[in-house]
Amino acid sequence: MSPLPSSAAGASDAVRLDLAALDQGYRDGTLTPGMVVRTVLDRIAAAGEDHVWIHRVPAADLLARAASLEALTAAERTALPLYGVPFAVKDNIDVADMPTTAACPEYTYIATDTATAVQRLLDAGAILVGKTNLDQFATGLVGVRSPYGVARNPIDPLCVPGGSSSGSAVAVASGLVSFSLGTDTAGSGRVPAAFNNIVGLKPTKGLVSTAGVVPACRSLDCVSVFALTVEDAMDLLAVMAGPDPLDAYSRAAPAVPAAPRVPFRFGVPAAGQLRFFGNAEAERLYRAALDRLSALGGVAVPIDFAPFAEAAALLYSGPWVAERTAAVGEFLADYTDAGLEVTRGIIEGGHKHDAVGCFRAMYRLEALRRDTAPVWDAIDLLAVPTTGTIYTVAEVMADPVTLNTNLGTYTNFTNLLDLCGIAIPSGFQADGRPAGLTLLAPAFREATVAAVAGAAHRAAGVAMGATGLPLPPARPVSYGGEGLISLLVIGAHLSGQPLNPQLTDAGGRLAGAVTTAPRYRLYALPGEPARPGMLRVADGGVAIPGELWELTPAAFGHFVAGLPQPLCIGTVELADGRMVSGFLCEAVDTVGALDISGFGGWRAYLAR
Amino acid sequence: MSPLPSSAAGASDAVRLDLAALDQGYRDGTLTPGMVVRTVLDRIAAAGEDHVWIHRVPAADLLARAASLEALTAAERTALPLYGVPFAVKDNIDVADMPTTAACPEYTYIATDTATAVQRLLDAGAILVGKTNLDQFATGLVGVRSPYGVARNPIDPLCVPGGSSSGSAVAVASGLVSFSLGTDTAGSGRVPAAFNNIVGLKPTKGLVSTAGVVPACRSLDCVSVFALTVEDAMDLLAVMAGPDPLDAYSRAAPAVPAAPRVPFRFGVPAAGQLRFFGNAEAERLYRAALDRLSALGGVAVPIDFAPFAEAAALLYSGPWVAERTAAVGEFLADYTDAGLEVTRGIIEGGHKHDAVGCFRAMYRLEALRRDTAPVWDAIDLLAVPTTGTIYTVAEVMADPVTLNTNLGTYTNFTNLLDLCGIAIPSGFQADGRPAGLTLLAPAFREATVAAVAGAAHRAAGVAMGATGLPLPPARPVSYGGEGLISLLVIGAHLSGQPLNPQLTDAGGRLAGAVTTAPRYRLYALPGEPARPGMLRVADGGVAIPGELWELTPAAFGHFVAGLPQPLCIGTVELADGRMVSGFLCEAVDTVGALDISGFGGWRAYLAR
Repeated sequence: MSPLPSSAAGASDAVRLDLAALDQGYRDGTLTPGMVVRTVLDRIAAAGEDHVWIHRVPAADLLARAASLEALTAAERTALPLYGVPFAVKDNIDVADMPTTAACPEYTYIATDTATAVQRLLDAGAILVGKTNLDQFATGLVGVRSPYGVARNPIDPLCVPGGSSSGSAVAVASGLVSFSLGTDTAGSGRVPAAFNNIVGLKPTKGLVSTAGVVPACRSLDCVSVFALTVEDAMDLLAVMAGPDPLDAYSRAAPAVPAAPRVPFRFGVPAAGQLRFFGNAEAERLYRAALDRLSALGGVAVPIDFAPFAEAAALLYSGPWVAERTAAVGEFLADYTDAGLEVTRGIIEGGHKHDAVGCFRAMYRLEALRRDTAPVWDAIDLLAVPTTGTIYTVAEVMADPVTLNTNLGTYTNFTNLLDLCGIAIPSGFQADGRPAGLTLLAPAFREATVAAVAGAAHRAAGVAMGATGLPLPPARPVSYGGEGLISLLVIGAHLSGQPLNPQLTDAGGRLAGAVTTAPRYRLYALPGEPARPGMLRVADGGVAIPGELWELTPAAFGHFVAGLPQPLCIGTVELADGRMVSGFLCEAVDTVGALDISGFGGWRAYLAR
Repeated sequence: MSPLPSSAAGASDAVRLDLAALDQGYRDGTLTPGMVVRTVLDRIAAAGEDHVWIHRVPAADLLARAASLEALTAAERTALPLYGVPFAVKDNIDVADMPTTAACPEYTYIATDTATAVQRLLDAGAILVGKTNLDQFATGLVGVRSPYGVARNPIDPLCVPGGSSSGSAVAVASGLVSFSLGTDTAGSGRVPAAFNNIVGLKPTKGLVSTAGVVPACRSLDCVSVFALTVEDAMDLLAVMAGPDPLDAYSRAAPAVPAAPRVPFRFGVPAAGQLRFFGNAEAERLYRAALDRLSALGGVAVPIDFAPFAEAAALLYSGPWVAERTAAVGEFLADYTDAGLEVTRGIIEGGHKHDAVGCFRAMYRLEALRRDTAPVWDAIDLLAVPTTGTIYTVAEVMADPVTLNTNLGTYTNFTNLLDLCGIAIPSGFQADGRPAGLTLLAPAFREATVAAVAGAAHRAAGVAMGATGLPLPPARPVSYGGEGLISLLVIGAHLSGQPLNPQLTDAGGRLAGAVTTAPRYRLYALPGEPARPGMLRVADGGVAIPGELWELTPAAFGHFVAGLPQPLCIGTVELADGRMVSGFLCEAVDTVGALDISGFGGWRAYLAR
């Protein structure tokens, strides 16, 4: 397939829209926001009737926005992490003074306020291009349930784009924008990622405010991100994440480890619990994706998928559908001609549930949470196919409910069980149709998921969406959990040394090898286990090699409180000038101890 | 009123049943479990038809249990924190091989397993005396809704005992047992405490397992404790608290400060938001209780009670009543003759709620949680009347629903808003009827509440229950939150010194003044703010005075990571031999600094 319609060929094709490329272009002056806006406008025009957009920002407004960004001083630009980044927003998310349709024309209203998540992106310098098509009221995983047409799948136009965030995914995959916002209650931020060969990040419930989003299931709804790379998605999360007093379900992220355990352990549904709906190619691609995780250093752990599958089934068989009824049921009752038949049928179904059944289902869900809790002690990530298969538009039109249900097999349980996840491409079937892998972890573990997902995406060897462009090199991301503390270790806590398990058992992650500034001396302390003591000195200091480990504040606090005399934690200067917490020693106990500063570190001394 | 019926006079009257008195008696040999059991049996016999018990352990079994405890070695006894402590259990809590009635004879079943909370008490050496009367299906706050009669209020037999845990409260107040278990969904563990002049502890939801409890509202139910003192209640919490895989709603307690901020801030509903239902005496007692909190060093802070009141109203006007229907609605449908009319009416009312309304009420509750969150930044505790008034049995019989509702004014919101609390006596009306004060705090703050509640209970000058016996002296308790870290400060972080707010802002609590072992020297370091550095020395050390502060592991971790060079945290020996984390200093920066060890500490040096 051709990555872009030939009519879009020309200068604008040279523009890569991933965040790293835009940042580089803006920094070296080869790009301006105006150039990027014109590229976007050219590509949208070239794409023609793709059914991606429900409302577009007028070209003149886009160019004016670009001009206002270009008028900023260099310092002002540097303060905007998303300077000149074009994006799209699913049309169930409010932008002030624009219509919100939720893909139901009769439902349309002009929003008075901009959703918190969108406002944070705009405040960071991003350029809103328009609002995108979706399965009506975000109810569906297929992308064909819209009176605004079926957003054209740019990988294979016969295939569904996936939903409900269909237009947002196609916009990114087609190279029309750098990223887009979707929403994800049942899987609407992941299924379209799989079907468009892009990245879909579903953050932890409450991490990104849903204020200004038309509710689907308010207790479960998440704002999600479609991006070209995992790093891009995490940068966008960094901009949007954080408590919002306008959203009662908003939550602050606790401190969590930023990097996965090494080797990381990934859960795989036990034999016989996987369903590919007869699609052997999809199964082959999933197995290959698991092999890549193993090649990246992961260890596969079979897990019992039954409680996850039961939770998934609860989402539509249980009372949560009544949340959809609570959101738009009154509208559908008032406007009897509005709404697609399939959508209306689902949403009106919420009236069949009573409060007694509602609480019983919640008890069952609580039991399933309890049953799955031990699984997360055994694994760091759960690796599932994003979908068991992919369908054509014709297939879904012929069987709109069952096939839609099939697509939620590996997504519907995620929010009910309070997980976060990232969907990444896992390559193409023999017929060219795409497939995806989803990595899931408990709430607030986005950074852990991203570390593996980014590497696995690169290892898949795919282009970005339908652009034909290769992925950019790996890079650090700006969202890494909250407030981890770096600790310099120089002795028995180094990797492979006897006390290192104190760090790994506490969830510590190795950040890398470092060296102190040349101001220290190292002594071999008496006693067992053998350990050094480090002192800062006024004269005659040397550089001591060590390792930096990252710990949560609580784990670090416990670690410090458990240290025996004469070890202390103080502030140590590194060779690169950084000041970090690190091991020191009470000077009184180095009197008479062997000065081993000349060996070049504790390991070298042990190997003497 | 007479504290005990005159027929109970004699030797057994000399036995105090509070935990400290029993412990002392067992230690010094003046008591044996057999003597205590006989005392309990004598008092129960003397009490006569008090309608406290639904099922009693046979006297022979009680004496056998006492004998088995007496046969233990001294070491085995010491390992049992509740050795020989008699207690009662509300009859909606299972004990294996005993009937569970939930105060509905037709509902009765013989339990096959013992509730986790009860089992932990038995495993700790406690002696179960029997199972107590309650408002049927724990639905009520009055204690008159039982076919087993009205448990006789030992303070004033005309008054209701309070419910639903009526028998459990009366058993403790009458001196029949040392403590008892209740349950508390709407206030059933607090209202009876107020009406019986005893302590009622309602722990955080999920802190004590509800496995083996007949559900009222499963998502809200708590096992509660009635005790003679706050310290007793906290000791019992220490035995029962902790995760239980049998209870899906079970939660582990995070680390929280053990002691209240000094001065502590207590919230008081703003003017005009308090309701005493025409009972001026109850209002007078509440005001006096607030004055005692101020006298204890507290600072009153007016708060907006409206969102708390709205949450309280949601409990019975909203869908949560359907949880009661989920629990016993099928039973009532099958046994049409069973159940009191008032109870059946409430529980069948749950069928009127649908799932749409259920979710809408949950959204509203979530909004109320959000609205009340800032209140908890301004106060450490909320101080409310336990009830606005007290009623006679005759009054409640004449108006069984409205008066019951009135009694929940200050209790119904607690579990919905995820608070914990302790109800303590606040003295007696001119007519001798009792009143109570309840102190509430966010989840897992039991230790903070207890510190103030214990002092306020003593300050109220009341006897224990209806026993006429004075409260024992204050003592430390064995439940103090989880894993706080003690930090020795010796300089600018001392109370009143410039950097002390770093500790108080981080939630740190002053544990007390201490002195190091005589092994240290103190130096005045150059720079601002003025601060000392402490070094351990081989010879010539002195004792340095300081303060111990308690911090959560996370707060401690942040604190350590933020310390500037040359300060360190190491392990410091105190004068009493304890080894604690504390401030030290890199020796290199004390070279040339003024040795101020002779001044007797940093404050003395500053005052030189």
